[in-house]
Amino acid sequence: MPGELLERFDREIAEKGYQNRSEAFRDLIRNYLVKRDLDKNEEIVGVLTLVYDHHVPNLSSHLNDLQHDHYEHILSNTHIHLDHNNCLEVIILKGRYSDVKSLSDRIIGTRGVKHGDLSFTSTGKNLSGV
Amino acid sequence: MPGELLERFDREIAEKGYQNRSEAFRDLIRNYLVKRDLDKNEEIVGVLTLVYDHHVPNLSSHLNDLQHDHYEHILSNTHIHLDHNNCLEVIILKGRYSDVKSLSDRIIGTRGVKHGDLSFTSTGKNLSGV
Amino acid sequence: MPGELLERFDREIAEKGYQNRSEAFRDLIRNYLVKRDLDKNEEIVGVLTLVYDHHVPNLSSHLNDLQHDHYEHILSNTHIHLDHNNCLEVIILKGRYSDVKSLSDRIIGTRGVKHGDLSFTSTGKNLSGV
Amino acid sequence: MPGELLERFDREIAEKGYQNRSEAFRDLIRNYLVKRDLDKNEEIVGVLTLVYDHHVPNLSSHLNDLQHDHYEHILSNTHIHLDHNNCLEVIILKGRYSDVKSLSDRIIGTRGVKHGDLSFTSTGKNLSGV
Repeated sequence: MPGELLERFDREIAEKGYQNRSEAFRDLIRNYLVKRDLDKNEEIVGVLTLVYDHHVPNLSSHLNDLQHDHYEHILSNTHIHLDHNNCLEVIILKGRYSDVKSLSDRIIGTRGVKHGDLSFTSTGKNLSGV
Repeated sequence: MPGELLERFDREIAEKGYQNRSEAFRDLIRNYLVKRDLDKNEEIVGVLTLVYDHHVPNLSSHLNDLQHDHYEHILSNTHIHLDHNNCLEVIILKGRYSDVKSLSDRIIGTRGVKHGDLSFTSTGKNLSGV
Repeated sequence: MPGELLERFDREIAEKGYQNRSEAFRDLIRNYLVKRDLDKNEEIVGVLTLVYDHHVPNLSSHLNDLQHDHYEHILSNTHIHLDHNNCLEVIILKGRYSDVKSLSDRIIGTRGVKHGDLSFTSTGKNLSGV
Repeated sequence: MPGELLERFDREIAEKGYQNRSEAFRDLIRNYLVKRDLDKNEEIVGVLTLVYDHHVPNLSSHLNDLQHDHYEHILSNTHIHLDHNNCLEVIILKGRYSDVKSLSDRIIGTRGVKHGDLSFTSTGKNLSGV
């Protein structure tokens, strides 16, 4: 590896708070493995975060119906009443990447949803011993 | 304490799986202290469990609106999609007994709710060292 | 039905806030049906509420290990950090009554748990059309 | 705007499933506003996803202690027992970006955590009418 590249890498990871290179490599490898599960359409865990205003007519009911149509992919849904208007829903999904992604896109795309974000992680099975 | 009463108590707690009397006394005292917090209208934690069918028109939206009107008493709401029809909601409330009880009664009493149950526990503050 | 019994019933349900007898009957029947599922050891939903102090050595780890040994009966676990010392865990279980009850008893009986309470509801399947 | 840029944009958003440009612009604006809240260190909502093996000695207890030290920033924590070994924790945080970020970095950086991911959303207040 060229010395210059390694120097830049060391500067970056120091900023991020890593103590040494091997810790940073470990995290790079894990992120790579999670990414690989997505690419291979393996079973993954998705965490979908939504913010919406419950005053939009029928929105809560519509979001609930949509989730029930695919309840086999949804492990749980935590709802936080942020304030008088705003709802936060954090939906935990499990399934093949393509199924989780397409259901999430439909939920985020529902008229009235203010913001949606989908993040991914591993089911842990492909990360043993890493 | 009369011997007969103690004998009956020992038989009961053996059935429940207690190893000895002092363990059983400890639990009796704790339940008494939680009950006392309810009676004194102290701040308590309530856990409200609901089962309903999301196909009832507007039910999800109505339950959500009702909770937002009192969001300051609701810590979180976990929604499990039990099957294609049935929703489970487990709502964690915190507040004075009277407030938690009256909000829960309104939620359980909503037309379309199949079953509701409210249980109580302590915020832990009055159980230190027990 | 004897008139005196019905009079007493009407007074009780008025105190509870019921508008009329048929609403109160409906709830009695539902509670009876949930109770019947328990008696018949059918599949039910249990909600287990725990309060404990996370400073007790190894308690969090022990509770987590115990739950993983029976993860097939646990749908989700919501943890609220009540204050600097006190933890609230609300564990949603699904399974035959005997399995849910015995796992809950072991969790509640763990040394260091301040208070535990198990409540039950239906999976909704046996309450359709009620 | 140069025609070529717009053409490329239209191709991209068609792939993502947007019906028209204005929907895509709306989402771009919202993401920009969420990003601005982070840059200005405003109050935001963070959702931290962790996967770990509960067999690592003391890991559950350590993660729990760490969260209690900052319980005022944590709204709730949902724990899913993925299988006999793997735990999924989804922690909902609220606070200034810098506080949420530094607590999350400490949790993710704990030895034994297999994978961690932090995503952000708005508290909804700065997205009204968008």
